[in-house]
Amino acid sequence: MELKKAIEERRSVRSYKEDSIPEDKLKRVLEAARLAPSASNRQPWKFIIVKDPQKRKELAEAASHQSFVGEAPIVIAAVALNTTHIMQCGIPSYPVDLAIAVDHITLSAVDEGLGTCWIGAFSQEEVKRILKVPDPYKVVALLPLGFPADKSGFKSRKPIEEIICYETFKE
Amino acid sequence: MELKKAIEERRSVRSYKEDSIPEDKLKRVLEAARLAPSASNRQPWKFIIVKDPQKRKELAEAASHQSFVGEAPIVIAAVALNTTHIMQCGIPSYPVDLAIAVDHITLSAVDEGLGTCWIGAFSQEEVKRILKVPDPYKVVALLPLGFPADKSGFKSRKPIEEIICYETFKE
Repeated sequence: MELKKAIEERRSVRSYKEDSIPEDKLKRVLEAARLAPSASNRQPWKFIIVKDPQKRKELAEAASHQSFVGEAPIVIAAVALNTTHIMQCGIPSYPVDLAIAVDHITLSAVDEGLGTCWIGAFSQEEVKRILKVPDPYKVVALLPLGFPADKSGFKSRKPIEEIICYETFKE
Repeated sequence: MELKKAIEERRSVRSYKEDSIPEDKLKRVLEAARLAPSASNRQPWKFIIVKDPQKRKELAEAASHQSFVGEAPIVIAAVALNTTHIMQCGIPSYPVDLAIAVDHITLSAVDEGLGTCWIGAFSQEEVKRILKVPDPYKVVALLPLGFPADKSGFKSRKPIEEIICYETFKE
């Protein structure tokens, strides 16, 4: 699929078919994450692929009881392995690094006919307990992955003039 | 361009031709950022397009004197407008949101035959002064944008087995 089409068609999918995901599709989606750039090429990430129905249900409960999270055949937990590194600009690098890799996953999912939904509303403590993630690692996102069962439309976006300015900052 | 090809071909470009960027290419690159998802669809971002040669030179100096940053015909500063929101999982949302939008820019740049390089090594204070970015906003990345003049290869990546695990966390 064209990059432009993947960017245009990506949306938050909150209803999934029960169909399992063919291994070759999953493999290509994960390969997109593997190729993502990261600060100093540290690749400070681990992706936990959760297929077990009971674990998915527990994750959904830990994610503010958003049951659709557990209804997807796979939930991917994106784990940051280095949570202390701060870039020279003062921004922690792990949320940036992990977001790039997860963005690659969400776009590649569209390319494979799959849907995802960024989940940031979850209990860090609970999810770490369920997935046995040790300190000081952090789960940056949960990502249900499956064939979309809904046809919900795109979210609106600000017009381009509102998000762009030239030479210096303007409100 | 196919999404897969854009992901495979994206690399950190550290040498740029002097050629200016056609407006239609720039427009499509920025549109990719505009369409990016963000926590609760807040779109908490502003992209400053810096073309002025003197300003670009100052930005390069503020970026640890990485002169190539100022040699690109455009430098994009990605500014976070909400730097206090914390997701329920305990991760600040602004580095995640901005990284998604900037990732869309870097991939779309490849699609347009352009190159970029994520720059996180810069003085937050200096860059904010140069671009008149008020508090409490933060510049999350500087992104030179131009036609690549080098042919440097890809960085190596960890093998997939090293970044994936199943059901629970494994080192």
